[in-house]
Amino acid sequence: MTDTFVGSIEAGGTKFILGVQNVETGETTATKRVPTTTPAETLAACRDFFKENPVKAIGIGSFGPIDIDPKSATFGYISKTPKAGWSNTELKGYFEKELGVPAVLTTDVNASCYGEYIARGRDDEKTYLYITIGTGVGAGAIQQGHFIGYTNHSEMGHMRIPKRADDKYEGGCPFHHDACGEGLTAGPTIKGRTGIPGEDLDRSHPVFDLISYYVAEMLYNIYLTIRPDVMVVGGSVLNEGDMPTVRKYFAEMNNDYVALPHLDELIVRPIVANNGSATLGCFEMAKDLLK
Amino acid sequence: MTDTFVGSIEAGGTKFILGVQNVETGETTATKRVPTTTPAETLAACRDFFKENPVKAIGIGSFGPIDIDPKSATFGYISKTPKAGWSNTELKGYFEKELGVPAVLTTDVNASCYGEYIARGRDDEKTYLYITIGTGVGAGAIQQGHFIGYTNHSEMGHMRIPKRADDKYEGGCPFHHDACGEGLTAGPTIKGRTGIPGEDLDRSHPVFDLISYYVAEMLYNIYLTIRPDVMVVGGSVLNEGDMPTVRKYFAEMNNDYVALPHLDELIVRPIVANNGSATLGCFEMAKDLLK
Repeated sequence: MTDTFVGSIEAGGTKFILGVQNVETGETTATKRVPTTTPAETLAACRDFFKENPVKAIGIGSFGPIDIDPKSATFGYISKTPKAGWSNTELKGYFEKELGVPAVLTTDVNASCYGEYIARGRDDEKTYLYITIGTGVGAGAIQQGHFIGYTNHSEMGHMRIPKRADDKYEGGCPFHHDACGEGLTAGPTIKGRTGIPGEDLDRSHPVFDLISYYVAEMLYNIYLTIRPDVMVVGGSVLNEGDMPTVRKYFAEMNNDYVALPHLDELIVRPIVANNGSATLGCFEMAKDLLK
Repeated sequence: MTDTFVGSIEAGGTKFILGVQNVETGETTATKRVPTTTPAETLAACRDFFKENPVKAIGIGSFGPIDIDPKSATFGYISKTPKAGWSNTELKGYFEKELGVPAVLTTDVNASCYGEYIARGRDDEKTYLYITIGTGVGAGAIQQGHFIGYTNHSEMGHMRIPKRADDKYEGGCPFHHDACGEGLTAGPTIKGRTGIPGEDLDRSHPVFDLISYYVAEMLYNIYLTIRPDVMVVGGSVLNEGDMPTVRKYFAEMNNDYVALPHLDELIVRPIVANNGSATLGCFEMAKDLLK
């Protein structure tokens, strides 16, 4: 009996990260990074990689918005997106037709959430959240093994949160300005406030306290709404050292309203190493297709 | 063959509303209102009603917080509540032991959501939200036939939302003051702002525009987070005439970010008449126990 392989595509705005996993051994046997240029060029390069490295199924985690409603005529497509040239691009069906294997599509953050759900024991009695604070802010959640949002996908990174009185920044979201989570916490807001990119700032700079406060606001709203058991904070804007600040503000905002679990178990960083939550999630979604 | 009857208990802070439904005919055959005094007195009166009107199963929708985690030692209890005397009161187990029939407990707003889900066709391809703006603000949601929150229950009425610049009110939430939905929109905030109870104000008073704005903020956050197909706005603070204002602000807040369905189908008032969504939901949850 020959081994079975599954594929992963993490479709991002600057690159597509491809991977192949040997299902029997769990080993990653091939990887590739394809620059995000035009859909025709980028997708063909992905297809060629999987022609050279055949798989039985593919899991795709993509930037959005995407159409995940099976009843829709554009099911499996990237929808209207600010990313030039990529609106109305078929993803799922493209790989199914070109490679003759089933594919499953969800958002990049849903895929990351799925990876953390797997890595943390795939406990369908628990609800999982993954939120990333990076160039943008995105989040996905899983309850009873199903993505929250179902045939639509969450956009909770754009929820409206109160601005802190000491923050005079006009906001970085092109749609919601300073009235949403992304507009107040995404990476570019650091340069927007300080003139300096986040990676060049000392971690003691007060902007990280401010962003931790806003992330706590988002997490508090999400906690009250869907009651996750684990909230994973990914992305490069905050790091492990900021988590105590996030937890502190979260507890202050709650002000003993709802009974809280231990916050160092509720608000955590990813446990999948090397930013690999989404790839793990895509591999697992592909394996689910084979069941 | 004799007919089958199920019971409904809507457990509120001022009264418990009891009902009996003939499962075969769908007819409500008995109802009673029991004042909420002490747990011993109120629960005994409920028990006596169902002794006189026997049922095969009981659905309970209660004020909260309640413990709905089957693994918890206090599963089926009201938890620590500001309602004097009612903390740590067993509900589900009380009726099961006293009446010898199965009971199911959820929140009053989850029960209302369940009733609207039933009345609107019990479509498990759709996600339903019920939010009530009344003495407090509560909400429940159903995705794929399951309550969002699962073994915990949503408290999304207390989410943090930005305050409008023209609103100088200090807020009515004892926990979150002016930083949460309940603190800015619940019934008592009207008297808090104007000195006059909402029911005595003309509907053209600007406070209803303000509250409609804040309800739109909550609905927008909930929409982005769990992507409901239907958002039912119940409670006495707003009425049908306020819905166009809520929809207008909702669309303005979105600012063409996510593709929206027709807002007059997304943001609606309850279709179950006479405030009966919760009772219908309790009857249906009781029937589910018999399947």
